[in-house]
Amino acid sequence: MTEHAAAPGTTDTEHNAPPHTYSLVEAARALSKREVTASGLLESCLRRIDEREPAVGAWEHLDREQAAARARALDAGPATGPLYGIPVGVKDIIDTCDQPTRYGSEMYRGHRPTADAWIVRRLRQAGAVIVGKTVTTEFAYFSPGKTANPRRPEHTPGGSSSGSAAAVADAMVPAALGTQTAASVIRPAAYCGVVGFTATPGTFPLAGIKGLSHTLDTLGLLAREVPDVALLRAALLRKAPVPVTDVSAPTLFVWRDTGLGPTDPAMDRALDEAAHAAARSGARLLGIRSGLPSLPDVAEVHATVMTYEAARSLAVERERPELLSPQLLELLSAGDRVSREQYLTALEDASAVRRQLWERLYGVDAVLLPAAPGPAPHGLSATGTPVFSRPWQVMGLPALTVPGLATSDGLPLGVQLVGRPDDDERLLAAGAWLERALRRT
Amino acid sequence: MTEHAAAPGTTDTEHNAPPHTYSLVEAARALSKREVTASGLLESCLRRIDEREPAVGAWEHLDREQAAARARALDAGPATGPLYGIPVGVKDIIDTCDQPTRYGSEMYRGHRPTADAWIVRRLRQAGAVIVGKTVTTEFAYFSPGKTANPRRPEHTPGGSSSGSAAAVADAMVPAALGTQTAASVIRPAAYCGVVGFTATPGTFPLAGIKGLSHTLDTLGLLAREVPDVALLRAALLRKAPVPVTDVSAPTLFVWRDTGLGPTDPAMDRALDEAAHAAARSGARLLGIRSGLPSLPDVAEVHATVMTYEAARSLAVERERPELLSPQLLELLSAGDRVSREQYLTALEDASAVRRQLWERLYGVDAVLLPAAPGPAPHGLSATGTPVFSRPWQVMGLPALTVPGLATSDGLPLGVQLVGRPDDDERLLAAGAWLERALRRT
Repeated sequence: MTEHAAAPGTTDTEHNAPPHTYSLVEAARALSKREVTASGLLESCLRRIDEREPAVGAWEHLDREQAAARARALDAGPATGPLYGIPVGVKDIIDTCDQPTRYGSEMYRGHRPTADAWIVRRLRQAGAVIVGKTVTTEFAYFSPGKTANPRRPEHTPGGSSSGSAAAVADAMVPAALGTQTAASVIRPAAYCGVVGFTATPGTFPLAGIKGLSHTLDTLGLLAREVPDVALLRAALLRKAPVPVTDVSAPTLFVWRDTGLGPTDPAMDRALDEAAHAAARSGARLLGIRSGLPSLPDVAEVHATVMTYEAARSLAVERERPELLSPQLLELLSAGDRVSREQYLTALEDASAVRRQLWERLYGVDAVLLPAAPGPAPHGLSATGTPVFSRPWQVMGLPALTVPGLATSDGLPLGVQLVGRPDDDERLLAAGAWLERALRRT
Repeated sequence: MTEHAAAPGTTDTEHNAPPHTYSLVEAARALSKREVTASGLLESCLRRIDEREPAVGAWEHLDREQAAARARALDAGPATGPLYGIPVGVKDIIDTCDQPTRYGSEMYRGHRPTADAWIVRRLRQAGAVIVGKTVTTEFAYFSPGKTANPRRPEHTPGGSSSGSAAAVADAMVPAALGTQTAASVIRPAAYCGVVGFTATPGTFPLAGIKGLSHTLDTLGLLAREVPDVALLRAALLRKAPVPVTDVSAPTLFVWRDTGLGPTDPAMDRALDEAAHAAARSGARLLGIRSGLPSLPDVAEVHATVMTYEAARSLAVERERPELLSPQLLELLSAGDRVSREQYLTALEDASAVRRQLWERLYGVDAVLLPAAPGPAPHGLSATGTPVFSRPWQVMGLPALTVPGLATSDGLPLGVQLVGRPDDDERLLAAGAWLERALRRT
């Protein structure tokens, strides 16, 4: 049996819960009403970090003094900006001009970028308080950093956005930035029991983010509830937030036999439970469509594009192989073995299969499937398989991890919603709807 | 009537021509035989620069002392490396860790990258002497730097690789690096009367090169003769050079009515002359094939991809609009108006048209057409139109400017060869063959 995991962000602020447990939406509301100050919220988060960081290891770098100064400055002025006073963690693959940025590699120890990434500028302009840099795997690929899963420290938090997922799951910050090339947001969000959202590639400029694959790389947002992610996305795009609380029941295609590899029985049950909860709340569920693409084949297409582009993106770093992990070196060598013709064919295949999929899924708001094969695997030497994300990533589709389910012994299980091309707002609306449906069960 | 321009690099070394006039191949041979030292060659180049730089303005930055120290160090050791002792200019859009890199923008005045670009590392490893950074237009887009056309100082040298083309044309260095997103190597090479080669995208990793459009950007090589470019390319790829002196006559498709816009009558005559020279030397010329793509339509596809990607690549710089040119700001705004669907469709169209073209041009070694509508336009406020390169660039095809023709009053006219997908060596062989055929006339 699956059980429902505790959702730390849903604590009612009126019951005097400590501010670090507020969801982003709750925190924004409390800050705007001056029920809490930016400094007070930050202090609560920093106390939580002090308490938990030795066990979790979510942070590559913390800048308490700078964050505190920023919070004080915000408190001294008017409450403006959609993220006014919100403490945020930034994955350490993203450049910050005032904090070191190591990209998860010894090669960049002490590296200090000369400029903020575009997305960091936007965060600051929206009023956020950047608490620090969260742990990433080496160059956002395979080799894990120090982070443990906050729900079960001997299990992986997933990667590559390991620290962002763990920090948000452990209520150290209400939100964090991640990036995804394969499954680097969707999987850690599922393993840690938080919401992970990957935007349609191209939505957010990636300038100032250390790239692995320019076709596949995309920005990810992690928070504890879907409306948090919707608010964060809208703030960063300077748009009005998409309505997520009064949306009609979505049409979901439940993709059970993906062929992407074996799933844990607990995940099979979690997917059933999510589907049943959705049906009970009025969703239209579809389970059979003919002519769908072979997802394992599409996952191969993803691997072709990623390896080819990674070998070029990391060409400079590759000249110091003694500072790279064997897994990364193998990825780069694999990239050498992909011919340009194979690469171009893979790009064409990805375009064709994206069109095919959505012709077949006409009228579907989102695809529902596992976010990962099961709960977070035991051990910290690897971060789990990316295979449940590869197909969507190479098709350039937005995706969302919806948490709220768990194994019988309490490890989070995330289901994944995949959205229509370039319709991230429809996906977030469906995700918020599903999140509420799961809470009703 | 067209006339043959002087080819400074063809001067016979045995007649005691100064070393700065040597072609790259001649210089490499003379260095390996110790007929000239690296220091002697560099000194000759620096004297030429001293003499001509005030009129030409090819250099953004010169590092005489460092180059001289490097040449002395090379002279003290064994003559190793395929580019041993060769002075090279590097377009100032390419990072160098020991020289400032301004990307043609005031925003980066004084900027000093922390690492060399991949291609700069390769240059150094092959034994080259980096003399300095050559002038680029603003972020390798439209707005010109200070460079004049060395053949006629009141005319543009073309852009964006303005300084590299001018420095090579004026015998300041035997070779230089450029980059191309639209026509930034092919056009300045034609205007200045040198060889410009753009590699198939993906051949050279672009890590450490300030990008405008990751799909379109590619590395360019500029030198005075086609075998120079072939040697430079092979050295940078650590391959054996492609044979360029004993190749059979190519099959060329002469594309006259491209629809890409009006051409100067002198350019029409130059194209005829190149075609006749090729035919006289035994090339098989084809001029009519049915079902060819509309090149103006493909040029539009290029513009769609470039504007969409540029708006994302320069997202950080865009936040300081007061430091950007109106033309660049307009490009970035145009990128905002391209939807993701339009962008993805453009990428698909580019793939489809590439396949269509080479199905129709079965058996053709290269396409022959103008490299630009005519000679370098008068005036230094613009760098000419990129339209004769756009179609090939978005199809990801290698291209080559073959110089050697000129207007009746001595302005260079370049013809362009476009190669088959991923067959840069066949293109270079055809180019070397055509270069020799033109000299026979």
